[in-house]
Amino acid sequence: MNELVISSTQNPRVKAVVSLQQKSSERRRTGRFVVEGRREVEHCVESGWEVESVFVCEEMEGGSCDIATCRTTLVTREVYEKMAYRGGTEGVIAVVKERKRELKDLVLGENPLIVVVERVEKPGNLGAILRSADATGVDAVVVCDALTDLYNPNLIRSSIGAVFTVPCVMCGSEECIKFLKERGVQILTAQLQDSEEYYDVDMKRGTAIVMGTEATGLTNMWRKVADAHIRIPMLGQLDSLNVSVSTAVLLYEAVRQRRMEELRV
Amino acid sequence: MNELVISSTQNPRVKAVVSLQQKSSERRRTGRFVVEGRREVEHCVESGWEVESVFVCEEMEGGSCDIATCRTTLVTREVYEKMAYRGGTEGVIAVVKERKRELKDLVLGENPLIVVVERVEKPGNLGAILRSADATGVDAVVVCDALTDLYNPNLIRSSIGAVFTVPCVMCGSEECIKFLKERGVQILTAQLQDSEEYYDVDMKRGTAIVMGTEATGLTNMWRKVADAHIRIPMLGQLDSLNVSVSTAVLLYEAVRQRRMEELRV
Repeated sequence: MNELVISSTQNPRVKAVVSLQQKSSERRRTGRFVVEGRREVEHCVESGWEVESVFVCEEMEGGSCDIATCRTTLVTREVYEKMAYRGGTEGVIAVVKERKRELKDLVLGENPLIVVVERVEKPGNLGAILRSADATGVDAVVVCDALTDLYNPNLIRSSIGAVFTVPCVMCGSEECIKFLKERGVQILTAQLQDSEEYYDVDMKRGTAIVMGTEATGLTNMWRKVADAHIRIPMLGQLDSLNVSVSTAVLLYEAVRQRRMEELRV
Repeated sequence: MNELVISSTQNPRVKAVVSLQQKSSERRRTGRFVVEGRREVEHCVESGWEVESVFVCEEMEGGSCDIATCRTTLVTREVYEKMAYRGGTEGVIAVVKERKRELKDLVLGENPLIVVVERVEKPGNLGAILRSADATGVDAVVVCDALTDLYNPNLIRSSIGAVFTVPCVMCGSEECIKFLKERGVQILTAQLQDSEEYYDVDMKRGTAIVMGTEATGLTNMWRKVADAHIRIPMLGQLDSLNVSVSTAVLLYEAVRQRRMEELRV
């Protein structure tokens, strides 16, 4: 480990980290972003992302790092707190190189299961969707016409690292529809109007589940190209589920159907 | 409408609201709590809670209130912001009377569906569970050995009002187990070890789904009395779902099974 300790919050490397945390424009310009927390950094490395540098605060509980492949710099607590976006992280912050994935880079299995998220606004919601996507072992998440970047600190945080483990692509809706149609993947759009209950639809074949925003739902472009419109029945008084909860319910129905099918064979 | 306008943040009624927002001890002592947001206050009234007083800031978008049954006081923006726990609410804040429900007060249907949450720590998680409980139309949510009160501002916020629409009881685990056993409600505990996949279990009869904390899971007391241990398969790399997401997945499986049964008859 390099024994240099950064103790000034004015250090240019510290300022660069703060800037990457705060500004999506800076993340875009440099192709770099920041990951906080030992576990998150480990998921990042295990999933093959390129960690450029790691800052460790040994004064903090858990402040150590065994990631041998990268340049490690010690920092004081004051410097760490300047760089950290959130409290409660364990004294480990990394700068990581962005990974540009396009639809053509996706490796899909037979009968893939894909999540498409259209125009999601809140980074925290997208992170939570990625977490559910990891749990259900989806082939890919496609974020269409995104209003957030994938490397927003809130997104990384709420994904608890799923943004590194789940293959994720950003593109336009038209491009995504073309891709799905060419590969014979059925498109199921989640919408309340003009729809059938989700468990009545066969999800065993290649399936893309398409989610809109909580506020305005999906655009007509998606509704029109759908093979089926599906709805989660709302049996209470509020008519509302969080979008990441809805996504998990729909994905686990696909998982259930596929497992049942396996048992049958 | 009363034309008095409170403009001082030192007004004793303003101070009382701030105190109810900040301190669970104050909520316990007075049996009162605070609800922010027009929609939330409306859910509250519709569900039969007693709204004692409403503060409205007409300078804010949406700052008006049609709730005829209660005492309304106008406040300035400065006063409103002092009282509000969160941003983005629409200029409506109410003081509401706590409703004490016990297990014996619950009105259960035939084959009830109940959620039990043991020792949940984060008010935000419990609020999100209540939101999913509303959507699935459960008979009741029982919070055992609670570490938060039901009227925490974060809980109310993340429940988007479900804390008012869903019958909710707080009690000890032993009392709850006795209640369920006496009524012949099967106990399904969510746990990773020594369990079967949740969709292999019949949830059509009276069912309580019991959730532990994300960190440590359920206590042995619950595991021992369970009729079955159920698990959501984790097919990704992170082995982790948010507890409110897990709850929704399990509850919707019960909904699915029950709907399929209805069709069969």
